[in-house]
Amino acid sequence: MRVLVLGGGITGLKTAFTLSEFDIETIIVEKSSEIGGKVKRYDKIFPDFRSGKNLVKNLIASARNSPNITVLENSTVTNVAKNNRSYTASLSDGKIIEVDAIILTCGFEVFDATRQPEYGYSVYPNVITSMELESFLNPEGPTKGKLLRPSDGKVAKRIAIIFCVGSRNMKIGNPYCSRICCSYSTKQAIEIKENDEEAMVTCFYMDIRTYGRGFEEMYQYAQEIGVKYIRGRVSECSVLPDGNIQVRAENTLLGKPVQGVFDLVSLSVGMMPCVDAEELAGIFGIERGKDGFFLSKDDDLFPHDTSKEGVFLAGSITGLKPIRDCFLDAMSVSGRVVSYLTDLYKNR
Amino acid sequence: MRVLVLGGGITGLKTAFTLSEFDIETIIVEKSSEIGGKVKRYDKIFPDFRSGKNLVKNLIASARNSPNITVLENSTVTNVAKNNRSYTASLSDGKIIEVDAIILTCGFEVFDATRQPEYGYSVYPNVITSMELESFLNPEGPTKGKLLRPSDGKVAKRIAIIFCVGSRNMKIGNPYCSRICCSYSTKQAIEIKENDEEAMVTCFYMDIRTYGRGFEEMYQYAQEIGVKYIRGRVSECSVLPDGNIQVRAENTLLGKPVQGVFDLVSLSVGMMPCVDAEELAGIFGIERGKDGFFLSKDDDLFPHDTSKEGVFLAGSITGLKPIRDCFLDAMSVSGRVVSYLTDLYKNR
Repeated sequence: MRVLVLGGGITGLKTAFTLSEFDIETIIVEKSSEIGGKVKRYDKIFPDFRSGKNLVKNLIASARNSPNITVLENSTVTNVAKNNRSYTASLSDGKIIEVDAIILTCGFEVFDATRQPEYGYSVYPNVITSMELESFLNPEGPTKGKLLRPSDGKVAKRIAIIFCVGSRNMKIGNPYCSRICCSYSTKQAIEIKENDEEAMVTCFYMDIRTYGRGFEEMYQYAQEIGVKYIRGRVSECSVLPDGNIQVRAENTLLGKPVQGVFDLVSLSVGMMPCVDAEELAGIFGIERGKDGFFLSKDDDLFPHDTSKEGVFLAGSITGLKPIRDCFLDAMSVSGRVVSYLTDLYKNR
Repeated sequence: MRVLVLGGGITGLKTAFTLSEFDIETIIVEKSSEIGGKVKRYDKIFPDFRSGKNLVKNLIASARNSPNITVLENSTVTNVAKNNRSYTASLSDGKIIEVDAIILTCGFEVFDATRQPEYGYSVYPNVITSMELESFLNPEGPTKGKLLRPSDGKVAKRIAIIFCVGSRNMKIGNPYCSRICCSYSTKQAIEIKENDEEAMVTCFYMDIRTYGRGFEEMYQYAQEIGVKYIRGRVSECSVLPDGNIQVRAENTLLGKPVQGVFDLVSLSVGMMPCVDAEELAGIFGIERGKDGFFLSKDDDLFPHDTSKEGVFLAGSITGLKPIRDCFLDAMSVSGRVVSYLTDLYKNR
């Protein structure tokens, strides 16, 4: 029994590892040069501030050490054909593999902040994205964990975090909530305050969606240590001669416009379907929802099945998920696929 | 291989059914007189308004028809002892069963609205809870789907829904978010408007946490059909001589106090750990978190394992979950337990 797992992020790795516990062989096909996905860039993850990088390191080691798992990097699926009950997949490097089932764990893409030009990203150096803030906060990152602003290398003391960039916005065509931005931004705000007591962090938000277990408590802790939350959609960022950024918003709690000047502004970008979503949907002949993410056969009852027998979905390919939900999805899809393969071999 | 599943709600039923697909025998022990849990009381569930009752009906039928599943109703576990690698459980009816693993799926309890006396629940007849509203909205319920107010049987036209009752409230000792109240309340608001175009529905909220796939779109639809959302914590409900309810709140978006008079007020109650959580924790020797819900060995990596080998957790016992997450948890714990049992039998 052999399964193709497309995508070597945390969901793909955990899925392959779980399947290996059932003595099922998997081939992980990863388009980039290295498995581990986006989480390896996170020094700390929410809500418990454990190391995302270590989490991934361990997953990578498990995958590399398992005799049941083959990792093919720099590789994509270019074509797939069904033969009776198995699939033949052609890979970009010319390899052809035969598998009994396919699990797509292709994840997501980060919203391109230049699509909301009112925030000045890529124009004003001191407007950065949350992904860049994450690397600034990393002790092993380019600034060794210091918040040095790009324009002049000075330590940023007044930081604004703007939530919902690229999410819940009809105008840019992303009406959906990206689910994790409120929580990862709150985590970042806490890190800034814990690294530098004098730093002032102001979060501009719409609704605080810290809904998961431990997320709300993290949000309460952020408020306790002095992170300021202002409810309001930011209308504009503009640059002052000294490189500072002026943020204008309407404080919808006080019902009046507010503005503030900050050394550094971080845009908490939301999530988009993976860049090759359309292509993949075509290759595998499966459907995507209005939001661009992939559709399962039934969100409640068959969350991993697609309209194609033997092709399954897991992780953020069906919409953004926090890391712990990706792990859960990986374990759940593994069970589903084991049961599918058992049926398949019984009927042969 | 035999597994005890404690709890016959949707998580327990789905877990037993998934295990049966792996040819594993399960015994469901349910304390009430009927399996199916709370979801059988929901005529429609969010975000797609499918029938919760049918969902449960099908699950119950699957459990009853599976030769691998035994259902014991009106039964609880009174004692449990570990013998080498198996468990002996004593049940309240005197039965003694031997099993290889135990899965606790004991769910949650609804917050008791009388604990927030400022809302007048159980004092003013026209203040009801969201569970009662659910039964009013059910075409097969006591009012045949009509919103007749308890005091005089008149059709309610002005309805207030108060979110976060028993949630995110330090004073009553529930600092956590109950996760599903924003979404189920929005679903109820839509049902009211769709049943009666003239009905006016006003929701008092803190943050709208419609974070799941399709949840945000449901919230947008509610606004489109005229459901009104006012951001503010309600301070008090009081009754007028005609039975109408006056609601006082601070509209935190406009920064001023608001009040309104409504025919009927529904309190969107949050969730608590199951009533016998303390007792169960004692019997099984496992831990609970500060929030009272059960603790898994590791939220990310071992979400189903407890500190006791062979005892697993699934569903809302570790914190509230929407129905689709309960199903996912059920599938995921099943995979975990199959892998555990395989190991167990290998090593014997």
